[in-house]
Amino acid sequence: MIRLFINEPLIAGAEIILGAEQAHYLVNVMRQDVGASLALFNGRDGEWRALIVETKKRACRLRAVEQTRRQETPPDLDLIIAAVKRTRLETIVEKAAELGARRVRIVITQHTNAERVRIDRLAAIAIEAAEQTGRLDAPEILEPVKLKALLDGWDPARALLFCDEGGNARPVIEALTSAAPGPWAILIGPEGGFSGEERERLRGLPFVTAATLGPRILRADTAAISAMTLWQAAVGDWRQ
Amino acid sequence: MIRLFINEPLIAGAEIILGAEQAHYLVNVMRQDVGASLALFNGRDGEWRALIVETKKRACRLRAVEQTRRQETPPDLDLIIAAVKRTRLETIVEKAAELGARRVRIVITQHTNAERVRIDRLAAIAIEAAEQTGRLDAPEILEPVKLKALLDGWDPARALLFCDEGGNARPVIEALTSAAPGPWAILIGPEGGFSGEERERLRGLPFVTAATLGPRILRADTAAISAMTLWQAAVGDWRQ
Repeated sequence: MIRLFINEPLIAGAEIILGAEQAHYLVNVMRQDVGASLALFNGRDGEWRALIVETKKRACRLRAVEQTRRQETPPDLDLIIAAVKRTRLETIVEKAAELGARRVRIVITQHTNAERVRIDRLAAIAIEAAEQTGRLDAPEILEPVKLKALLDGWDPARALLFCDEGGNARPVIEALTSAAPGPWAILIGPEGGFSGEERERLRGLPFVTAATLGPRILRADTAAISAMTLWQAAVGDWRQ
Repeated sequence: MIRLFINEPLIAGAEIILGAEQAHYLVNVMRQDVGASLALFNGRDGEWRALIVETKKRACRLRAVEQTRRQETPPDLDLIIAAVKRTRLETIVEKAAELGARRVRIVITQHTNAERVRIDRLAAIAIEAAEQTGRLDAPEILEPVKLKALLDGWDPARALLFCDEGGNARPVIEALTSAAPGPWAILIGPEGGFSGEERERLRGLPFVTAATLGPRILRADTAAISAMTLWQAAVGDWRQ
């Protein structure tokens, strides 16, 4: 079943006009025609079965028929990732969508080689991965911010898992045992690691849990996937 | 510190002649010259500090000076992965090296679109990732085999974690609690999933533990990384 993420409200009988790109995908790539069924979701109204009612060259009109899944509220997990090479960043966003992160934020640290980040392209990757993984929302991609400013404005109600490659932190799974299931964020550093100053500040903050990802050096994309996996297994929706 | 995987034995004073490719990397890419230090490992003799004693256009001579790390025996984990698209397979091999798998075996299942697999290229990727992740061996890449033949010849002393996307299996972390730390393998299916016949056989085998990787549909590379992460956290060398 083809799934498309849209922005419009979904109610019975609602008509949705797809833009050029989604229409092209549906009609030309997937070769769907008038009368075909697909699934729609918008992050608010659950999943709906819809029918294609009209196709044109650069547009496509759909009608929402019935709700097939109710909206769920997935665990409240943010992924905060130091800017890394574009291809690895795109992989990380795809995996954040599959592993149930609600938001992905790029952070600039002292050892970050700040490449230009294309938020719109990352958001498109997040939506495509959300469509394929079966979730009912798509991760939001937030504008890059400096680590210092991020921590200065941190909401202390959100716990922060700091994946600390240097030093003597506990394993993630042990650090998360008996962790509260409220809002969390995972922080993954740049290829060069955090600076001594950054590590010291992070380790002193009351909402921070420092943890280590095993004895080998992991690339940023591996570290992000492993940390999200362990968090979902220990605190999130991979339990039971 | 540059790390290189070699095949020759490592003892004090041993002279090692690098082949054209490693010599090119060391001398031209990394711009190292006579007198520079690097680290060598071969999967048997630990890690050694070595010096460059001579460089030529297409060769480079090294001398092993002293052992800097003893050989360790990492957990005995195999990753068995259905043949998927080449780029995803290459990612999976890179991640298997980072996440401590000893062997990677490609398996042909009923729903596999068997692309031609280049074992030599995958082995080179495994070695490069092993050099960067800091381990003292490199994962072996084994020739593709049919699932039926693999299971017919299975050593029952090796437990098999079957990541089963269909049905009612327990979460991995729960399935692995109190698992024995002996030899294990992880089996990840193709994009189209296992056939009903394959699932039934797998679930009936005494050495198989079936488990699920959360409520969302994961691509094969994500499933492989998540399963290796959870295994290392629960049974392998990510504990304490």
